[in-house]
Amino acid sequence: MVSTVLLDVVNFVGLAAFALSGALMAVRRQFDVIGMAVLATITTFGGGVIRDVLIGDTPPEALRNVWWLVVPLAATAVAFFFHPQITRLRRAVVVFDAIGLGVFAVNGSAKAMQWGLSPLAAVMLGVVTGIGGGILRDVLGGETPAVLRRDSQLYAIPAILGCTITVTLLALDVHLLAATLPAAAFITGVRLLAVWRRWTGPVPRALHG
Amino acid sequence: MVSTVLLDVVNFVGLAAFALSGALMAVRRQFDVIGMAVLATITTFGGGVIRDVLIGDTPPEALRNVWWLVVPLAATAVAFFFHPQITRLRRAVVVFDAIGLGVFAVNGSAKAMQWGLSPLAAVMLGVVTGIGGGILRDVLGGETPAVLRRDSQLYAIPAILGCTITVTLLALDVHLLAATLPAAAFITGVRLLAVWRRWTGPVPRALHG
Amino acid sequence: MVSTVLLDVVNFVGLAAFALSGALMAVRRQFDVIGMAVLATITTFGGGVIRDVLIGDTPPEALRNVWWLVVPLAATAVAFFFHPQITRLRRAVVVFDAIGLGVFAVNGSAKAMQWGLSPLAAVMLGVVTGIGGGILRDVLGGETPAVLRRDSQLYAIPAILGCTITVTLLALDVHLLAATLPAAAFITGVRLLAVWRRWTGPVPRALHG
Repeated sequence: MVSTVLLDVVNFVGLAAFALSGALMAVRRQFDVIGMAVLATITTFGGGVIRDVLIGDTPPEALRNVWWLVVPLAATAVAFFFHPQITRLRRAVVVFDAIGLGVFAVNGSAKAMQWGLSPLAAVMLGVVTGIGGGILRDVLGGETPAVLRRDSQLYAIPAILGCTITVTLLALDVHLLAATLPAAAFITGVRLLAVWRRWTGPVPRALHG
Repeated sequence: MVSTVLLDVVNFVGLAAFALSGALMAVRRQFDVIGMAVLATITTFGGGVIRDVLIGDTPPEALRNVWWLVVPLAATAVAFFFHPQITRLRRAVVVFDAIGLGVFAVNGSAKAMQWGLSPLAAVMLGVVTGIGGGILRDVLGGETPAVLRRDSQLYAIPAILGCTITVTLLALDVHLLAATLPAAAFITGVRLLAVWRRWTGPVPRALHG
Repeated sequence: MVSTVLLDVVNFVGLAAFALSGALMAVRRQFDVIGMAVLATITTFGGGVIRDVLIGDTPPEALRNVWWLVVPLAATAVAFFFHPQITRLRRAVVVFDAIGLGVFAVNGSAKAMQWGLSPLAAVMLGVVTGIGGGILRDVLGGETPAVLRRDSQLYAIPAILGCTITVTLLALDVHLLAATLPAAAFITGVRLLAVWRRWTGPVPRALHG
């Protein structure tokens, strides 16, 4: 009971963080309010929709729980009026986004396991759920997806590790909450550590020169 | 009977307008004839394919009615030989495109309702059906999607309003034609009015300075 | 028996070629190792995943045969350490990629026929299977899709012709191998001939001036 409420709250924080990141990119790209709402919505639901389409769970969850749409619309409204203040709160957005990454990635892997996919496929789908929305946001916004760039701090790597933890624990019949919440916290923690310590991913050698 | 023929004609005008807009963007981007055909095809069917994949109606309609493929191929041929003349007819293309937006958006919402989705989800899917093809066209063509940009006239807003009208009427058990045709005309009309009067969407405040 | 092994080998060459082309583009775009792995994976599986989602075969093959994931990961490792040498082997990559195009396009059409789609839809899906991964690679890498550009040698055209051959033969009840392998060789051959002889597609007239 308490844990369900906790999950809902954490999930909401993740949705809100992704929504804000989409709305704020739209402000930076000087889009209008429709551009903000579209980018916020796609960033919020993109990863989960791709996951659901791939596993064949259609219509996707985002279309069955449409009151979730309140989240990107509220984020659009907030960013519309208060984006200078939010931009100053850039660190808070990074923290929220890291929470979203952890929650979405781990949830994606857990759902894929429930749908009978193999462990390796479940890790892949978890990562897709975590990073898919941000990739769509960047492509629509006309930027190279942050997750691919060498100047970005570790993002996919903690997701891969955390999803592997979740999938391993679920394969060992560990309880869902015990298999997901610590792994989500691990992803969020490593991501924040990477931002703080400026950890970046390995780069092919010749390009160093 | 008459109304079915009318619907077919209107739908055809919408398909043709979207196909032409894709082929003409390919000309502007200096693509070859394959680039023209690919862009025309994706613009014509993109929104409907996304809608069908999301609601789980696979293979999508565009693959079941493949003679529709004649439309983007004919548009490619016409644009290949006559694009200077068509470009001079830019206003005609804008009118056709507005008709396509209205027809596709309203049809998308009606189909979503028939498939049992909730009213809010049906509005979303209608808008996706209307604007999806154009977004794919712009992304593949290397431009920022027009629907997101502040310098574009109202496009998504009339679609949202028109789909809301259709969904409301369908929820009240109004006949399909009565619930869709006026709403499609409303979308087309508001869009054309916006182009004519240069109505643009609201923009976040700080960027005015 | 022998023919099945042959098919597997040819398919593997195609997967590996597409994987390398994705990893090498990531190197050229100065992405990090995650960017390489993501681009390699999407290029390898993108076309087939789109095909499977469109015909409704979910989860897509790539998620059911996850050991295939070894291919893009190995390509990433190879490109990470040896990309200067591979870049010098650019011709080998072009040959591999042409093999991949032929195999994937023809396999895509054959699968669509098996799933009961119409011949024209099967040709379309074959072409999508062949060119889809490369289009996603280019969009994510921030480049205009090569297949659309006028300065690219024939790529989609041999795929369209070869898929038409396969679909025609399958419609005439020709054996699967006889309907696919020669058509795949035809696509690969025409593509390589086009690269060698610098054949490009037709371009709309006014742009010549």
